[in-house]
Amino acid sequence: MKIALDAMGHDDGPRPLVEGAVLALREYPQISKLILTGDTAQLETLLKQQGCNDSRIEIVHTTQVVEMHDSGIDAVRKKKDSSVSRAVDLVKSGAAEAVVSAGNTGAAVAACTIKLRMLPGIDRPAITAMMPTENGRHFILCDAGANPDPTPQHLKDNAIMAAAYCEHVLGRPNPKVGLLSNGTEEFKGDALTLAAHSLLKNSGLNFHGNVEGHDLFEGAVDVVVADGFTGNVVLKTSEALAKSIFRLLKRELLANPIRKAGALLCKPGFKAVHEVTNADEYGGMPLLGINGICIIAHGGSSPVAVKNALRAACSSIQHQLNPHIVEAVQRSHDSTSNAPQPA
Amino acid sequence: MKIALDAMGHDDGPRPLVEGAVLALREYPQISKLILTGDTAQLETLLKQQGCNDSRIEIVHTTQVVEMHDSGIDAVRKKKDSSVSRAVDLVKSGAAEAVVSAGNTGAAVAACTIKLRMLPGIDRPAITAMMPTENGRHFILCDAGANPDPTPQHLKDNAIMAAAYCEHVLGRPNPKVGLLSNGTEEFKGDALTLAAHSLLKNSGLNFHGNVEGHDLFEGAVDVVVADGFTGNVVLKTSEALAKSIFRLLKRELLANPIRKAGALLCKPGFKAVHEVTNADEYGGMPLLGINGICIIAHGGSSPVAVKNALRAACSSIQHQLNPHIVEAVQRSHDSTSNAPQPA
Repeated sequence: MKIALDAMGHDDGPRPLVEGAVLALREYPQISKLILTGDTAQLETLLKQQGCNDSRIEIVHTTQVVEMHDSGIDAVRKKKDSSVSRAVDLVKSGAAEAVVSAGNTGAAVAACTIKLRMLPGIDRPAITAMMPTENGRHFILCDAGANPDPTPQHLKDNAIMAAAYCEHVLGRPNPKVGLLSNGTEEFKGDALTLAAHSLLKNSGLNFHGNVEGHDLFEGAVDVVVADGFTGNVVLKTSEALAKSIFRLLKRELLANPIRKAGALLCKPGFKAVHEVTNADEYGGMPLLGINGICIIAHGGSSPVAVKNALRAACSSIQHQLNPHIVEAVQRSHDSTSNAPQPA
Repeated sequence: MKIALDAMGHDDGPRPLVEGAVLALREYPQISKLILTGDTAQLETLLKQQGCNDSRIEIVHTTQVVEMHDSGIDAVRKKKDSSVSRAVDLVKSGAAEAVVSAGNTGAAVAACTIKLRMLPGIDRPAITAMMPTENGRHFILCDAGANPDPTPQHLKDNAIMAAAYCEHVLGRPNPKVGLLSNGTEEFKGDALTLAAHSLLKNSGLNFHGNVEGHDLFEGAVDVVVADGFTGNVVLKTSEALAKSIFRLLKRELLANPIRKAGALLCKPGFKAVHEVTNADEYGGMPLLGINGICIIAHGGSSPVAVKNALRAACSSIQHQLNPHIVEAVQRSHDSTSNAPQPA
């Protein structure tokens, strides 16, 4: 498999990306070529530091970097020679089968949407994010930010696509789908959610109904469908709140020698909690709906997370994510057009 | 001050409400009358158990209880003799100056909106919630669920009302207002948020711009404005996530005797964290925009939280919450109509 890696798009520059790339080459023989897009001199230095002279690595030199605060569409239009744009170009030309980016998400979404276009039957892309639960079974949040103003049909499409990923790539058969709302009761929701609820009820998916806060982190469903605005807010709020709680704990538990001693005894327990809530295991998640494979990773990804994002790209290719999505969307459209019409 | 308490509306029945009422009477001499609405026999038994024969207590007998899963408007229409409806009636008739309810929030909102009507210049009510931050300084989330499909003007009104509460009742001068969005950059947002951003920029409020996850829990602002759908989702998600993390910690830290010993040494540290994140201190928060004072408390409120919700009712009366809101809204409308028109 041939993968392109946006090797400049990371909060801390290219180093964690190169380190992750080297880990992936060691672990995944199925990668036949790994194309890094970015500044050749910097990337070669980092590869040398890693002692890596793997012949499967290729560098495509680019001169521009999309910053985290750049607007996505502007970045694609004005920085044509950016590492993310060139990486997506490689998928478009067929030189790579998938692209992985931990850079500016808006730029990756815009580049993929503009250059690769959408899958048949799909209007808009959707970002997925993997979120931890109390019982260790993660759920997929979709859309986590690509489309802040979707239609009810977009939400249904997001559900179909995320369920297809969950079933065919992650190997969880008949995934349970929940609709994020302001209450579990069917009458709760904004206008968009209420309309989407009706569509999902008749979608043929394993639809669990509306879900709210506690359903999420107790692992009630495999897929949580949301509009891209609320989904993004939930993703960032959850991440920020967890960080705040752990920082607060650290501050209080290191406040005096007695607590410090106690915290030391508890260390394996804290480590176990960290492991349950750690997102590195998944590394990256697909941008759904585009005519190609794009894995989006966190801007602060560790080298291990980058390695696992590259594994996610391989799995999505291997398990034919997009053909499965196209088939599921087609099936859904057929069943809708064959359904008895309301009188 | 004369306060009405919906004495049946609580996840665990009337007991915590009666216990909270008794605590409040002991602590707040400014309460001249506390009217409990609910089942007389049950309430009298509970009062007797508390050894309370305070002459300031009065019971108004009601025969119906709104359940937590009832739809708000249905509850008001079909259960006319419910504890919450009768409590709001007491405000309408002038027998009470404020109502406190920890029951079905939708029913309290519907009863207040239908019976008390809105303040001049305000279209829709907004629920406020107090959320903890890392530095111990809470922020006000508004709207936390009353209006899931607001207009940009509603969001601006929410900002004005919540800022007035923050300044005049909580005593935080010139409160910083943030707009919840999917990114701090001005170009980020759904259509609603983008339009509200422009209004807030020219509102005369101390507008901090868009806020996202980390701004919230690091205490960047005093007021976070959101539509009622996203606000409610954020409130419930945050509450659920915090509970999940603490349950997970408990599970892991009690998993073996060594960790248990460590946890014991850390206990004061955990207690300190609990105190920073504890919402009992505020107890209840106002439903803003209605022509009356209604304090909404959590359905699982402790007696101390109920007591503090009654204190919030007293403060809102004493500091003239509603006259301040009317004045702020009027000032904002005047400045908008006097503003130079765009060419």
